[in-house]
Amino acid sequence: MAEQREKCVLAYSGGLDTSVCIKWLQEEKNLDIIAVVGEVGQEHDGLEAIRQKALRTGAIEALVVDMREEFANHYLNRALHANALYENQYPLLSALSRPLISKYLVDIAHEYGAKYIAHGCTGKGNDQVRFETSIMMLDPTIEIIAPVREWEFKTRPQEMEWAREHGVEVPTTEKAPYSIDDNVWGRAIECGVLEDPWAAPPTDIYTMTGHPEEAPDEPGFVEVTFEKGIPCAIDGVEKSYLDILYDMNAIAGKHGFGRLDLIENRLVGVKSRECYEVPGALSLITAHKALEALTLERDVQHYKLGIEQTWATQVYNGMWFAPLTDALNAFIEETQKHVSGTVRLKFYKGTCTVVGRKSEFSLYNKDLATYDEGDIFDHASAKGFINLFALAGKTWAENRRQAGQDIF
Amino acid sequence: MAEQREKCVLAYSGGLDTSVCIKWLQEEKNLDIIAVVGEVGQEHDGLEAIRQKALRTGAIEALVVDMREEFANHYLNRALHANALYENQYPLLSALSRPLISKYLVDIAHEYGAKYIAHGCTGKGNDQVRFETSIMMLDPTIEIIAPVREWEFKTRPQEMEWAREHGVEVPTTEKAPYSIDDNVWGRAIECGVLEDPWAAPPTDIYTMTGHPEEAPDEPGFVEVTFEKGIPCAIDGVEKSYLDILYDMNAIAGKHGFGRLDLIENRLVGVKSRECYEVPGALSLITAHKALEALTLERDVQHYKLGIEQTWATQVYNGMWFAPLTDALNAFIEETQKHVSGTVRLKFYKGTCTVVGRKSEFSLYNKDLATYDEGDIFDHASAKGFINLFALAGKTWAENRRQAGQDIF
Amino acid sequence: MAEQREKCVLAYSGGLDTSVCIKWLQEEKNLDIIAVVGEVGQEHDGLEAIRQKALRTGAIEALVVDMREEFANHYLNRALHANALYENQYPLLSALSRPLISKYLVDIAHEYGAKYIAHGCTGKGNDQVRFETSIMMLDPTIEIIAPVREWEFKTRPQEMEWAREHGVEVPTTEKAPYSIDDNVWGRAIECGVLEDPWAAPPTDIYTMTGHPEEAPDEPGFVEVTFEKGIPCAIDGVEKSYLDILYDMNAIAGKHGFGRLDLIENRLVGVKSRECYEVPGALSLITAHKALEALTLERDVQHYKLGIEQTWATQVYNGMWFAPLTDALNAFIEETQKHVSGTVRLKFYKGTCTVVGRKSEFSLYNKDLATYDEGDIFDHASAKGFINLFALAGKTWAENRRQAGQDIF
Amino acid sequence: MAEQREKCVLAYSGGLDTSVCIKWLQEEKNLDIIAVVGEVGQEHDGLEAIRQKALRTGAIEALVVDMREEFANHYLNRALHANALYENQYPLLSALSRPLISKYLVDIAHEYGAKYIAHGCTGKGNDQVRFETSIMMLDPTIEIIAPVREWEFKTRPQEMEWAREHGVEVPTTEKAPYSIDDNVWGRAIECGVLEDPWAAPPTDIYTMTGHPEEAPDEPGFVEVTFEKGIPCAIDGVEKSYLDILYDMNAIAGKHGFGRLDLIENRLVGVKSRECYEVPGALSLITAHKALEALTLERDVQHYKLGIEQTWATQVYNGMWFAPLTDALNAFIEETQKHVSGTVRLKFYKGTCTVVGRKSEFSLYNKDLATYDEGDIFDHASAKGFINLFALAGKTWAENRRQAGQDIF
Repeated sequence: MAEQREKCVLAYSGGLDTSVCIKWLQEEKNLDIIAVVGEVGQEHDGLEAIRQKALRTGAIEALVVDMREEFANHYLNRALHANALYENQYPLLSALSRPLISKYLVDIAHEYGAKYIAHGCTGKGNDQVRFETSIMMLDPTIEIIAPVREWEFKTRPQEMEWAREHGVEVPTTEKAPYSIDDNVWGRAIECGVLEDPWAAPPTDIYTMTGHPEEAPDEPGFVEVTFEKGIPCAIDGVEKSYLDILYDMNAIAGKHGFGRLDLIENRLVGVKSRECYEVPGALSLITAHKALEALTLERDVQHYKLGIEQTWATQVYNGMWFAPLTDALNAFIEETQKHVSGTVRLKFYKGTCTVVGRKSEFSLYNKDLATYDEGDIFDHASAKGFINLFALAGKTWAENRRQAGQDIF
Repeated sequence: MAEQREKCVLAYSGGLDTSVCIKWLQEEKNLDIIAVVGEVGQEHDGLEAIRQKALRTGAIEALVVDMREEFANHYLNRALHANALYENQYPLLSALSRPLISKYLVDIAHEYGAKYIAHGCTGKGNDQVRFETSIMMLDPTIEIIAPVREWEFKTRPQEMEWAREHGVEVPTTEKAPYSIDDNVWGRAIECGVLEDPWAAPPTDIYTMTGHPEEAPDEPGFVEVTFEKGIPCAIDGVEKSYLDILYDMNAIAGKHGFGRLDLIENRLVGVKSRECYEVPGALSLITAHKALEALTLERDVQHYKLGIEQTWATQVYNGMWFAPLTDALNAFIEETQKHVSGTVRLKFYKGTCTVVGRKSEFSLYNKDLATYDEGDIFDHASAKGFINLFALAGKTWAENRRQAGQDIF
Repeated sequence: MAEQREKCVLAYSGGLDTSVCIKWLQEEKNLDIIAVVGEVGQEHDGLEAIRQKALRTGAIEALVVDMREEFANHYLNRALHANALYENQYPLLSALSRPLISKYLVDIAHEYGAKYIAHGCTGKGNDQVRFETSIMMLDPTIEIIAPVREWEFKTRPQEMEWAREHGVEVPTTEKAPYSIDDNVWGRAIECGVLEDPWAAPPTDIYTMTGHPEEAPDEPGFVEVTFEKGIPCAIDGVEKSYLDILYDMNAIAGKHGFGRLDLIENRLVGVKSRECYEVPGALSLITAHKALEALTLERDVQHYKLGIEQTWATQVYNGMWFAPLTDALNAFIEETQKHVSGTVRLKFYKGTCTVVGRKSEFSLYNKDLATYDEGDIFDHASAKGFINLFALAGKTWAENRRQAGQDIF
Repeated sequence: MAEQREKCVLAYSGGLDTSVCIKWLQEEKNLDIIAVVGEVGQEHDGLEAIRQKALRTGAIEALVVDMREEFANHYLNRALHANALYENQYPLLSALSRPLISKYLVDIAHEYGAKYIAHGCTGKGNDQVRFETSIMMLDPTIEIIAPVREWEFKTRPQEMEWAREHGVEVPTTEKAPYSIDDNVWGRAIECGVLEDPWAAPPTDIYTMTGHPEEAPDEPGFVEVTFEKGIPCAIDGVEKSYLDILYDMNAIAGKHGFGRLDLIENRLVGVKSRECYEVPGALSLITAHKALEALTLERDVQHYKLGIEQTWATQVYNGMWFAPLTDALNAFIEETQKHVSGTVRLKFYKGTCTVVGRKSEFSLYNKDLATYDEGDIFDHASAKGFINLFALAGKTWAENRRQAGQDIF
């Protein structure tokens, strides 16, 4: 009688790599595979079909999990609170879904008594790190397998050859020229001609956003209402954050807003050229920042800029479940208590502009700010303020002057 | 025989406030006035006319000083190196000209043996602080007078009444509805209807930039070449930084790029609503950042983000001549040694997009980055890297697990 | 019939300045005075006597409030969590009591319907700022009076003359040569001969700590047990934090530990020479840091260093009730959840040394750390780790080498 | 005729590990060995004897290089400028010598035409990283070999067995219970009983410092004079920095000052317990900080704290030659221009106390600081200063009050 095999939970996408993984883990590691397909808002032709393919390829179980509400309410909420832009530019889309998927992988491993988790990432990207650090912190006893890093295939033809020999379905169409990852927060495109940083990206790489040159001639306007830093209504209609995100993707995408083309530093030490489209994410971050500028006290607003950079880097580096991220979250959450109000955005041919903002917690006080009549600011305070604000510098300058030294 | 009067150097603009200052300083402080008009690239109808007005109003001397080359090469160079955006959004235009003008005021005070320097700023803005801290650090023995903060007029009509009574020329046209400050780096517009943060700015406030809706239907492309972080050629033609800045203002302005509408925290503790147009400045910062992403080593690039924020805040706060600014400058300058190369920008109806970047100092290495064939990256290193990169977090997770605690 | 006078709550110490304040506020401001004496652990000859003096001097009410438990549990707890040392050296003693006293002043003002609060601080120290910012944030409608900053006396003899004329009791003994502020967290000594930074402080300025040269020849040992970052037991005996602080002051003081002599930057822009004795506070901070080194995950520990500096500066600057402090507190509190365990301290002639630390949440793992047998660390991971850890730098170096440039 | 063998430069200490390395590299890698012994101020019984041992063991060349002056003037100068304490506690001694030695290894490799460099570090410490990152950045084309990480011996007896079989001299005495690294900056002791963080370190581990209990009963005083942040005279006698360092080691060591016992986070992700003695280094850092407190402008002093932490972490992590370190160096060097003056230190039974400091560049101004007569500070400025300093917070508080919310 056959010995029972150990189980392995596999993050499954339906593509060639993870399909080969199923068979390879069976053959080379003697494991039973539970394939998990996460629904995080990506483009697809049917998740049930992907599930069936996993089973056909040999998985003993295959699950499709709709993670979208949890994604919005426990991951994308934090990203928006943090105005998360890695290197001040990249809105972290894959970096946000990896820990969520990892959490499900670990939960399912526990449920099925699996000792192993596998993923289909290569050895030079960020995603391998994000899956593995997340899994290690959620359950350090689980063993992680990265078949693509381990197997002997050097090229795609070799991999396809092995697939054919082992009965794995092989795509009959040409390999897509780009490598794509996407979810409701946005879409990443890399590889191919994009690997030349001097070459402009072809317009056909984008699917969430229209070409600015072909966008409507009339601008579009949207009002987004936030409650404690999270969108709760659009044009006055209350909706869930997830629904608002879908709406914003549609509106901003229609007007050609949200494309990014950049050079980015991967955690593993290489620079890569990445193209992204993040229409909803980037327009909500724009609106959220504008509301913060109105409602956050100055010192909070200034210090939060550094916290945001660290938060984005932590999450980019796969440290979602690390204790430093928790402490940063605690800081950020404290700042969002009064980030409530409405921001009016104008979209036009690739631009997204804030054209109005209001809040019951607005710290803008026209009577203090105005240079016109109605001014309540105490001008006489300024002289004393400047005297003491500059005193340390003035003392330094006086010392240099007495030492006969020029300042500039 | 009349006692000789002490001299006072006045920063003079030709407007009502500084014209009244000339007479007020004579009458109330018994001072002789040397009026100084700085040419920093602002819009004007003739600086010689302004000079004549100062003399007519009673100044014993009036000077027009062209500060533009020094502005570009010793001030705007640093702003570009620092990608200087106060609060990550405002490119500091007035904050950059104030220390330069102050330096000339102090030099002229030394030349003419003046004990006093006066400026026409009010008591609630940032510029009073910038003038005074700059002057204090350049020569702490000079006494500073701020007539507008000190005099008794509560309203503009009162001021005009006093002006008429004392023979100061009074403008016959309606007061402009906005308060403007501008130089070659950009233009700031505040007051009037802009004081309602929910109201969109009227389109007529802008003069350097066209309305995006009316911009050309064809995109415009420009290639800017940098040497050590400073533009040295445009579309292959070598020019001075100042000339390139004028060119970029024209090109970006034509395509409607560079308008900002924001809530900003003044140093004196109030939030204000500011509109800016910074077409050249913002497009050069965009290009410079893109070139840095290609040529700066990752850790330098990451750490510089915090240095940049501090630099911008220092300069916003009037600390141009302070020793911390010097130390930040030393850091930044060290980073710019190899920020040389060319960036290609596309302008279209309010957008400015980087569509290409190249450099002999590029740290992008396609052979390392590619996911395709030709890859020289050592994938086997990844496993060891992740193991040790995550070890501190994994040890923490293991301790929590043993203590029976959930991580998330 | 006499009009009813407005009321003013006064922070009262019993000294000459605040006694003159009572009378001066009556005479010059026509106010009724409610004197408040805070018990925060300072040295005194009887607080009831001070209270009686306030009434004799003309206060309509005088209150002694024991704030010590609240001080320990809501203020000194945060200072210890933050290892709060302003400029990495000064444990903030006055800066910690001022917001607490301010809170009581505001509460009492509300209770008695007082529109005014007064304090006896001069115009050049930090304490005026701390009182006033605290009061402003707790109730921005209260008007603050600072008589010492406002009155006309230039010298102490003038003040004493006024006091005698107005029936305020005048001290018959010589003025103490130093200015002192103290509470259970420590004692600050300034002025007199200390104003020469080259002169060593006289030994007679200290009262909480013995002279190291006269300390016991035998070292003393103490074990402090912490629960979530706060001391809960000393040598195995459970006590309140306040009681442990008193014990530590006695033990450390006996062994001559906890004296500081330093140059410090006041908020108002001047450097001052300050001597402190903080025996209990500094030994608890030493122990707390040692326990954190054992129990905090590395990235948390590193990032917290910057948070601690900002926290200390915020509190030094009187920003206890500001929203940035709240957000920093949220970060810090999140880090303290597992800072539980015991630290063994050795005291000897002015030194305090950690000689042991243990915790159930210790992240020290001998099996990972050891260079001896029993090692479970995966040495093979190191090669891959170094390869990728150094890859960004190596790529940079390779580019420089190819450009024919030396690195060093 | 025998093919010529490739050459390998080996960092050689004379101990068992690096002696086995010589033979192992010959046998297993077929390399000719050039052994390099660096004199960095470590304790030793004769470097010529070590050199001879390398030759006896089979090296084709063996060199002793006195690196001490370069160490002091190009490495320890930067450490002192940066007040470098990793995690605010550890003065980086091994981390400072590794890049210096690496630089010589690379230079010698170039001189001898060697393609390889080898070191004797294990796979779990920091030093392997420091050697390898330094070498990679100095010459990315050199191949690095780490025999101890690669060879098959699991235990010391196995290694000794192999040594005996291959004619490598084997120590006849018992292995020392501790692992030591030392240089003129200090001495590190780890392993053995020290691996229990609850156990106090045995007193016999220390050789540079006496036991405080046995230190002289009379305090010792020293005056150290600095020029631009570097010691140039001791008690008024001009000496080189290196000689002053030797003197300070002797004086501080005699008085039992400079022992550290701590838990430290290694770069590879493990916490380790380390004991150090750094008598000269720590007393010079103490003096340097005191002089900086007197001569650095406040904002410089505050910002430098963060720069120092990053500098120490960079160097701890082996990033001496990385471009971020260069930029940090530029910042720090700018700050040291006026850190000139004299500091008086008192040593007594394990303590080192600053008892005086003076400088022609002192920014301490008694006339500004004093609370006594002679005061030139403008007290009236304080009211205006506080009004605007607190205005952002007050506006926030007012908004919360109007919204009916408590602040605390």
